[in-house]
Amino acid sequence: MKCKVCREHAVVDIRRHNAAFCQDHFLEHTRNQVARAIKEFRMFRADDRLLLAVSGGKDSLALWDILIDLGYDVTGFYLDLGIGGYSHRSRDLSISFAERRSAKLIVRSIETEHGFTVPELSALTGRVPCSGCGLSKRYEFNRAALEEGFEVLVTGHNLDDEVATLFGNVLHWNTEMLARQMPVLNERILGEGDDARVALVRKTKPLVKLSERETAAYAVLRGIDYVVEECPMVEGNTHHHYKHAITQLEESSPGTKSQFYAGFLRKAADRFRDAEVSADDTEIVACISCGAPTVRRDTNESRCSFCKTKALATKRKAEPARRSPARRRKSEA
Amino acid sequence: MKCKVCREHAVVDIRRHNAAFCQDHFLEHTRNQVARAIKEFRMFRADDRLLLAVSGGKDSLALWDILIDLGYDVTGFYLDLGIGGYSHRSRDLSISFAERRSAKLIVRSIETEHGFTVPELSALTGRVPCSGCGLSKRYEFNRAALEEGFEVLVTGHNLDDEVATLFGNVLHWNTEMLARQMPVLNERILGEGDDARVALVRKTKPLVKLSERETAAYAVLRGIDYVVEECPMVEGNTHHHYKHAITQLEESSPGTKSQFYAGFLRKAADRFRDAEVSADDTEIVACISCGAPTVRRDTNESRCSFCKTKALATKRKAEPARRSPARRRKSEA
Repeated sequence: MKCKVCREHAVVDIRRHNAAFCQDHFLEHTRNQVARAIKEFRMFRADDRLLLAVSGGKDSLALWDILIDLGYDVTGFYLDLGIGGYSHRSRDLSISFAERRSAKLIVRSIETEHGFTVPELSALTGRVPCSGCGLSKRYEFNRAALEEGFEVLVTGHNLDDEVATLFGNVLHWNTEMLARQMPVLNERILGEGDDARVALVRKTKPLVKLSERETAAYAVLRGIDYVVEECPMVEGNTHHHYKHAITQLEESSPGTKSQFYAGFLRKAADRFRDAEVSADDTEIVACISCGAPTVRRDTNESRCSFCKTKALATKRKAEPARRSPARRRKSEA
Repeated sequence: MKCKVCREHAVVDIRRHNAAFCQDHFLEHTRNQVARAIKEFRMFRADDRLLLAVSGGKDSLALWDILIDLGYDVTGFYLDLGIGGYSHRSRDLSISFAERRSAKLIVRSIETEHGFTVPELSALTGRVPCSGCGLSKRYEFNRAALEEGFEVLVTGHNLDDEVATLFGNVLHWNTEMLARQMPVLNERILGEGDDARVALVRKTKPLVKLSERETAAYAVLRGIDYVVEECPMVEGNTHHHYKHAITQLEESSPGTKSQFYAGFLRKAADRFRDAEVSADDTEIVACISCGAPTVRRDTNESRCSFCKTKALATKRKAEPARRSPARRRKSEA
């Protein structure tokens, strides 16, 4: 197996590109794929201030490394979710990486900010852990970006992540989610004239042209120490079933994943645009608790999902004796 | 396991319906699912003359049995594809069924009609066997229905077939096919006024609410002798990979298939309607060879896919000595 570029010994092959690369040219290829995604989808400009959500895993650390090398003004944001040793280890690895590359890093803890960890949130509200975690992360990432004055939020979702999400949304024909399944979601402004303010920052996913295997290979070849273990709360997650099913098809027919994703963006995404809840701006109002955009309810008291969930968790945490045995059993399971 | 209806011992369980049935109530349930599909999608009226494409397999024979029991005026149509012993056995089983149920059956042979079998067509033209076979069947089914005066063509595609096709079309975002992925395709008229004639008969799939496992169970419990072997030419068919991938998801989450299919019809199919090639009637003209509808080409000589393929096969068959060794090797493989 020889490098496609220099014909030296190759260390990584990428079947869907029908190509193999030596270490140097693989790293270059990987950086190029990120640069191409940024350009193709007009993710951000050279002088934008970027906030990168960092989990301590291969994807976000590899992306951080690449964005620094491409010369972007990028700051890491680590949100401690309070998931025991897993969170400790991933936080330490994120801090080590920042020190090694002299990169800016903001660390916050969901427990310090809101009074509960992700496992507690799940136990108190009965929400599936991944659901409460996703809600909290989306909320905190956006809040941190707004508070700290960043123009763009960047996440490390790779091709496999996007393909599994797309597959799940297609299997259930979740049209509202299909309307938002893009590598870039523009910022959302609330209010008009002098009252206008950014309520949701622009969100971008520069790894959409790279598979999980490629970001892992990049991290390994660059000597990046990342948390290898999976989140202990992810077990039974249907997202994993979707990943597995599509990965089997990719093995028998390399390129299936990227064709599925790129084909969606090119030939189908526009067909679902009208299904976006927020397509009609009149339906979006500011949450009465925190000001984040939320869908207008019948009552005048529109509160966003995070504030409603937080209020429920806070109430239950304060009154454990009033919870019924059935609910307590469920929440402790 | 008890029957959902009568609480007697159940012989078949259907996980996606969270139900089990005794023999009698399973047969009744199966007939009801066919009757419901016919009604829901307005497939045909009680007095329509139906031509059912019969392969000798479980699906088409079970459907034939059910349509007779539901009181429809249904005639079987067996097309001998000339695939060796497989075709002989499936033809014999179709004839036996017709005799047993005193049903009308039309038998034609593609070799007699056009001068080549499906394996020959594939070898002569270099087409994948399933592709040439599908083309020939669609053509011959329609031609037979028109010539013999049937209003509706009926095929035995079951839920698994439709789901695998839908999955393949979605993976490749084949929008033109997604526009036609319906349990009913209306007839197509060519010409205007006194010249107007049906060029494509109405096509319907009454088994879309039943899985492969259910049609097999129906056939077994009804004592229907069907060809169990798969077509020997199907090996490596990507359709089978898609079936396998979705079946795994169905096992971990019963109902995935029917939700995927029903959700498509309800929430997505309309979004692809404009992608149908024949959406614009001006683009559809009569084939200059046979009169079948075909897409207008730049030249004035619009010929349908079947006639072009047949012309190529006929020419090659007549002049074997003029074929290059490379082509001969390929076609004999």
